Amino acid sequence: MRVLVLGSGQLARMMSLAGAPLNIELSAYDVTNGNIVHPLTQTVLGSGLDNAIANADVITAEFEHIPHPILDICEQSGKFLPTTEAIKAGGDRRLEKALLDNAGVRNAKYAVINSREDFDVAIEHVGIPMVLKSALGGYDGKGQWRLKDLADVENIWAQMADCIASSDNQAIVAEEFVPFQREVSLVGARGRDGSIAVYPLAENVHTEGVLSLSTAIADQELQAQAQQMFTSVAESLNYVGVLALEFFDLNGQLVVNEIAPRVHNSGHWTQQGAETCQFENHLRAVCNLPLGSTQLIRETAMINILGEDTLPNELLAMDGVHIHWYGKEKRTGRKMGHINVCSDYSGELQRRLSALADVLDKTAFPALAKFAR
Amino acid sequence: MRVLVLGSGQLARMMSLAGAPLNIELSAYDVTNGNIVHPLTQTVLGSGLDNAIANADVITAEFEHIPHPILDICEQSGKFLPTTEAIKAGGDRRLEKALLDNAGVRNAKYAVINSREDFDVAIEHVGIPMVLKSALGGYDGKGQWRLKDLADVENIWAQMADCIASSDNQAIVAEEFVPFQREVSLVGARGRDGSIAVYPLAENVHTEGVLSLSTAIADQELQAQAQQMFTSVAESLNYVGVLALEFFDLNGQLVVNEIAPRVHNSGHWTQQGAETCQFENHLRAVCNLPLGSTQLIRETAMINILGEDTLPNELLAMDGVHIHWYGKEKRTGRKMGHINVCSDYSGELQRRLSALADVLDKTAFPALAKFAR
Repeated sequence: MRVLVLGSGQLARMMSLAGAPLNIELSAYDVTNGNIVHPLTQTVLGSGLDNAIANADVITAEFEHIPHPILDICEQSGKFLPTTEAIKAGGDRRLEKALLDNAGVRNAKYAVINSREDFDVAIEHVGIPMVLKSALGGYDGKGQWRLKDLADVENIWAQMADCIASSDNQAIVAEEFVPFQREVSLVGARGRDGSIAVYPLAENVHTEGVLSLSTAIADQELQAQAQQMFTSVAESLNYVGVLALEFFDLNGQLVVNEIAPRVHNSGHWTQQGAETCQFENHLRAVCNLPLGSTQLIRETAMINILGEDTLPNELLAMDGVHIHWYGKEKRTGRKMGHINVCSDYSGELQRRLSALADVLDKTAFPALAKFAR
Repeated sequence: MRVLVLGSGQLARMMSLAGAPLNIELSAYDVTNGNIVHPLTQTVLGSGLDNAIANADVITAEFEHIPHPILDICEQSGKFLPTTEAIKAGGDRRLEKALLDNAGVRNAKYAVINSREDFDVAIEHVGIPMVLKSALGGYDGKGQWRLKDLADVENIWAQMADCIASSDNQAIVAEEFVPFQREVSLVGARGRDGSIAVYPLAENVHTEGVLSLSTAIADQELQAQAQQMFTSVAESLNYVGVLALEFFDLNGQLVVNEIAPRVHNSGHWTQQGAETCQFENHLRAVCNLPLGSTQLIRETAMINILGEDTLPNELLAMDGVHIHWYGKEKRTGRKMGHINVCSDYSGELQRRLSALADVLDKTAFPALAKFAR
């Protein structure tokens, strides 16, 4: 089986590593330069979307910010999964919010802003405090504002107006601020036959808008809520593959924040902690193979490595610590890799995170501060 | 870190998959045609041993039947690990037996046969029944004879004489037959700093001389014996990397049958069953990184896939079943992949092997017959 991935970053790379044992061969299409590359070695294998499509049995994506003409050509080939509709919704906050409403899942009240007048309407409809997000292209905390005080309206509008003017079809989505206690996410897979398998919820810590720590958690009540919403969204899209839902936990009520129509950073822990990792399950789904068990096999947490390209060697000697580098060149704040930390008995995971906090640089890994001894 | 592997088969492939998350990049040198290839994709990256060596930080091997001139050139580069002496001993039964004697570990009485007269001396010294093995090139049951009855001496000698004449420096090693109850093996790693970490013993079932089933076992008494012999052999060679010792279990006394100076088929279960798999630990050792924990995390067995290139899809839906294909073209008897089967509680592994026996073809997987219900 030959799978083409739109995008050639770390998610395609990890899919490639997960696919090899199943004899699933991956190639990646770099949408920025039209090259077809091997997602592990980055060797250029050819160029051009038509060639890439012709040599693939199945096409999928590792990110949602893909030019629509490319998605449309992939759609026409009849090989694209999960569905181009899902990818487009993942890349456009307006479509995403409409999709959540359509699937009937709880999400924050919102309004779309194209003009200064729309902003006033949004303030009235949504209320303050509100969160403002660019409809297109924003991720990892970029393209976001918070309006807490009406005195800031003009200042924020100036920045939003620049953003709207900066690209075609751009807009701002205003959302009610949800005073959540924590952020959790659910990663799961839906097969071509409609079967669904979801992983345990992960509790996520973001630092400056970027995920820094994810820990698999066991909470039956929240899990049931999340699974029901996952099923609604996946079925409304006739989705095939791995899908992630990010939630706010508001006093035990989950509110969907956003969806990611792909394998997700908050599911990297599954490489060590689940029976079948999310990368393998995405490939199983799109290749029409049975989904693998999503059962937790070990308590596991994941720590992102941001902007660092070396770690102390002693980490490798620590029990339950697994490092996953992405083979990328160092750049400030760039996702360079992640660390999975596992434990086999209750309480041990906290101790291992504390041991990591002792060894790792505090400024580079701020999410570990709370585990410091 | 760039590691060159002599040999481009499934062991190099699995090292490549294990090395990627550590940013260890592998290339493989095909000793039969001089090509440098990527061990996962088999893409030709270049040719010539000098080029291969120049582009590597470390050189290692995935098999022991390597022409000595190639090993000697690698040795001269100063980059080769575990040591060319170990690889040569792994490929020559005479050197291997001398090495075992030198390390002071229990092994079967033996004699080297170069002529018809030597055969008589061997019969007197070793006694019958005896096992006869070609000194060079024999593996997976090829180039082996058993002498149980003196009436067969001339017939067997004729075959052995052909074998001796067939290549330079060939000979036969006669060994006392060990009436063992079972075969077990120990896979472990030794680091550059002399640290040693061994995995739990595996119990192995061979079918027609080829490994068909390996199961990690817990036996403190045997483990201690095996570990002591592992340490003796590894230290006598100043070995660096993963090393496997195969034993006969003779009434609770282990007798070394042979050594494999590399990652080993009976250690494939570590991919799912151990904290750190053998492929990662070999790379850690040769790259001078700390060894990873070899602790058992789940009861695990491994079943070889021989000569088959498809399996029923339903296997993928079975809990704890993980398939590892090698991306090879089908050939009768060829090692095409393996299946790891894990369980989380006592007794479950047998049940899962029984479930596999129900689904898999009995002639293709004879080792599963004993689990059939």
